[in-house]
Amino acid sequence: MPNPIEFYFDFSSPYSYLASEKIEALAARYGRRVQFKSILLGAAFQAAGTRPLVDIPLKGEYSKRDIERSARYEGVPLALPQPFPIGTVGAARAQLWLSDRDAERADAFVHAAFRAYFVRGRNIGLGDVLEQVLREVGADAAEVLQAIQQPAIKERLKSQVDGALARGVFGAPFIFIDGEPFWGNDRMPQIERWLAQGPF
Amino acid sequence: MPNPIEFYFDFSSPYSYLASEKIEALAARYGRRVQFKSILLGAAFQAAGTRPLVDIPLKGEYSKRDIERSARYEGVPLALPQPFPIGTVGAARAQLWLSDRDAERADAFVHAAFRAYFVRGRNIGLGDVLEQVLREVGADAAEVLQAIQQPAIKERLKSQVDGALARGVFGAPFIFIDGEPFWGNDRMPQIERWLAQGPF
Repeated sequence: MPNPIEFYFDFSSPYSYLASEKIEALAARYGRRVQFKSILLGAAFQAAGTRPLVDIPLKGEYSKRDIERSARYEGVPLALPQPFPIGTVGAARAQLWLSDRDAERADAFVHAAFRAYFVRGRNIGLGDVLEQVLREVGADAAEVLQAIQQPAIKERLKSQVDGALARGVFGAPFIFIDGEPFWGNDRMPQIERWLAQGPF
Repeated sequence: MPNPIEFYFDFSSPYSYLASEKIEALAARYGRRVQFKSILLGAAFQAAGTRPLVDIPLKGEYSKRDIERSARYEGVPLALPQPFPIGTVGAARAQLWLSDRDAERADAFVHAAFRAYFVRGRNIGLGDVLEQVLREVGADAAEVLQAIQQPAIKERLKSQVDGALARGVFGAPFIFIDGEPFWGNDRMPQIERWLAQGPF
């Protein structure tokens, strides 16, 4: 069995959302699975000395247009949410907690949370919205919401973020295939060639 | 006759080089011309509060790998030069001066200068290298080297850079098609669809 595709993402990253809608079908065409790894971009931005896209003069304005155009180009439903960006530590911990127990449900949660925020404009940074999304995927919402307040999962997420930084992750989506790093939804064509033909 | 494709670039930008090798053939397939517009990324970075890629922790290391892999992916010859990046004000002024007099020679100079730097590792920031590249495209090198020291062309370039900033240019390549902005070599697939089908 080939290695899974490692997909680092932040729930507040629109390009991660776009890539998340395509990556599993792409992986399946080449006999691979996807391992979704939630991180917090704030930590990565701090390490790289960069900022959220929308805070950067000129680039911020352009990126709103580009995100919407890219979604139309790819045929993925998207409506830029407000507020944006948002804190996603709760959603990230919930995804990680689920992934330690039930990978399938954790994957379903990735898509449900991304769509809640980027399609329906629901602020998944709020507890009650997070609760609804957890219910939507059949999780015991009360149990998860209680678990993500515990030191154990806080430490797990911190260590996943630190591990990502140690591997050079500075943005999202950030995808590894057999150790080869690909940053950004734009790299899907190169990812496809790598999966099809191996290193180039 | 449809509007030309406006292609803003800096001679020190590897992704601009990659895009410059494809944009004319792409334009021609849709009955368009390309208008190459040299700018100085330093000014754009200052306006956006950003920095050259290679100066950014983590992102800098990744980008070297990505530039080389992207070149192989596209089948464009490239060897990352040293020093990098370099000052390109002389080359930018030369291209602008030529474009005011002989568009065809100015376009030939774009490719010759990019290839000198990104294929043969020649530092086009140096006067004697610039002179050789000018000769290579049949320009009167002495005349151009003298002209680019004059206030008139300095002012022309400054105004081209200011014009670019006013249009929201913050990086390179930065491409406009009938006013629609596209940033980066990654956007070539969207550019192709825009040319083929119009706005989406």
